[in-house]
Amino acid sequence: MRCVYVNGEYVPAGEATLPALDAGVLFGRGVFETFRARQGSVYRLDEHLRRLRAGAETLSIAPPAALAELPAIVRELARRCELDDARVRLTLTAGAEGGAPSLLIQAKPATDYPPPMYERGASAVVASVRRNETSPLARTKTLNFMDNVLAREAARSAGADEAILLNGRGLVADGSAFNVFVVRDGHVRTPMVEDGALPGVTRGAVLELASEAGIAVEETTVTPSDLGGAEEAFLTNAIAGVMPLVSVDGAKLGDGRPGPLTRRLRELYERDATD
Amino acid sequence: MRCVYVNGEYVPAGEATLPALDAGVLFGRGVFETFRARQGSVYRLDEHLRRLRAGAETLSIAPPAALAELPAIVRELARRCELDDARVRLTLTAGAEGGAPSLLIQAKPATDYPPPMYERGASAVVASVRRNETSPLARTKTLNFMDNVLAREAARSAGADEAILLNGRGLVADGSAFNVFVVRDGHVRTPMVEDGALPGVTRGAVLELASEAGIAVEETTVTPSDLGGAEEAFLTNAIAGVMPLVSVDGAKLGDGRPGPLTRRLRELYERDATD
Repeated sequence: MRCVYVNGEYVPAGEATLPALDAGVLFGRGVFETFRARQGSVYRLDEHLRRLRAGAETLSIAPPAALAELPAIVRELARRCELDDARVRLTLTAGAEGGAPSLLIQAKPATDYPPPMYERGASAVVASVRRNETSPLARTKTLNFMDNVLAREAARSAGADEAILLNGRGLVADGSAFNVFVVRDGHVRTPMVEDGALPGVTRGAVLELASEAGIAVEETTVTPSDLGGAEEAFLTNAIAGVMPLVSVDGAKLGDGRPGPLTRRLRELYERDATD
Repeated sequence: MRCVYVNGEYVPAGEATLPALDAGVLFGRGVFETFRARQGSVYRLDEHLRRLRAGAETLSIAPPAALAELPAIVRELARRCELDDARVRLTLTAGAEGGAPSLLIQAKPATDYPPPMYERGASAVVASVRRNETSPLARTKTLNFMDNVLAREAARSAGADEAILLNGRGLVADGSAFNVFVVRDGHVRTPMVEDGALPGVTRGAVLELASEAGIAVEETTVTPSDLGGAEEAFLTNAIAGVMPLVSVDGAKLGDGRPGPLTRRLRELYERDATD
């Protein structure tokens, strides 16, 4: 099936190619977005596009005109590949010297996070690698992603679902593939972008929805002891939405089960995202 | 001219392609080496290969059998492209899921560092981004290279030749494309790998050659004031060899001209490298 779009063509995954001398390959000069398309439609696609364009600017990549047709391309991929619920990844590379940027879009079934995982909740370990909050790449979803991938692989080897990265000053920054939220004294807190959190689209949605629902929520400094002593905690990304986090480094958070504020925010998010 | 080798074929630069879904593209799961081939022959090629293999292991990439033929491939590229003095870049990517790694080798004229630059010496600025010495990628030459590229571009915009990166603890770690050496009280010092220095092949050669020549040399902690107060300083990489560094952030080092120990080490290096 032709489930990959590359520079205007729909091709089978195995046939999609890029120029080998693309700066995206040689130096990581490229950005990406991952989002979920339900019935061909993407929640807050404009915000994914805004972040993509900001990242492209950081890396001096001229965004291609085809981005304007992104909703139609995503619908077409979902149709061709018969995906009611798709995990879509968009990758924009700088191109070879003197050449044009490349736009690559892949669609797969969104099966990464099965329903029972929301009931039991996810486990995490704190990674040995730090998030480098002094780098503009910390605020940008770029192809320089191996620190996250290696941290996640190490977490999986240790039997956990996710890795949590501290920043250079020892504060909680982010997950490898998720943003992190903690609840203390009934207040919801998430690390600031300045502390190394990727400005996640789902993170932004949860901040908004919580605030609208009258739940106290704050982007702030989060220390490892704020995390370890949390009543409840959760992770967010565009594929999973709101995922309960129930243990860190083998120690339970709260009673070790998804908490009530987490459940409420997950409901609010799912309602909004599938509206 | 067919100056690019990709997975067993010699092709023109514009025709070299890689699978778009290569993990080297999508996540930066790949390593590279850059070296100089004079008359088709590479100084300390075995050490470049050793570092490449160590990096491949860090990223769980199985090194392809073709690496054993690297000397012949480099000679063939130099012959085909009529390059007496070539800048060669080897890139090894992890490949697409279920696919094989890709080996890409490019050759160009080694014209980056013209002779007058060694006479006047290079200038550097200290970058705002830090080198993340907590990451295994700091010790590995990977495709996650944009922090270095952006730091160097910012240095060039500021009128300097190179960017110097401090680590998370504020110690001198490395240049963006060079290792850094300083001379104080007649002693030659270079930052430790533990402090975020890439273990450069030319760095290793200079450490050896200096030691053999009875010059006091040490891998150690280097502070910004060690750098600012240096009698002389120099940069090393496999293309430039030993490049004098004569100013940092607009302030002269020593008398602002290439120093005697730098000149001596450059001679020792050039003699050894062109033997």
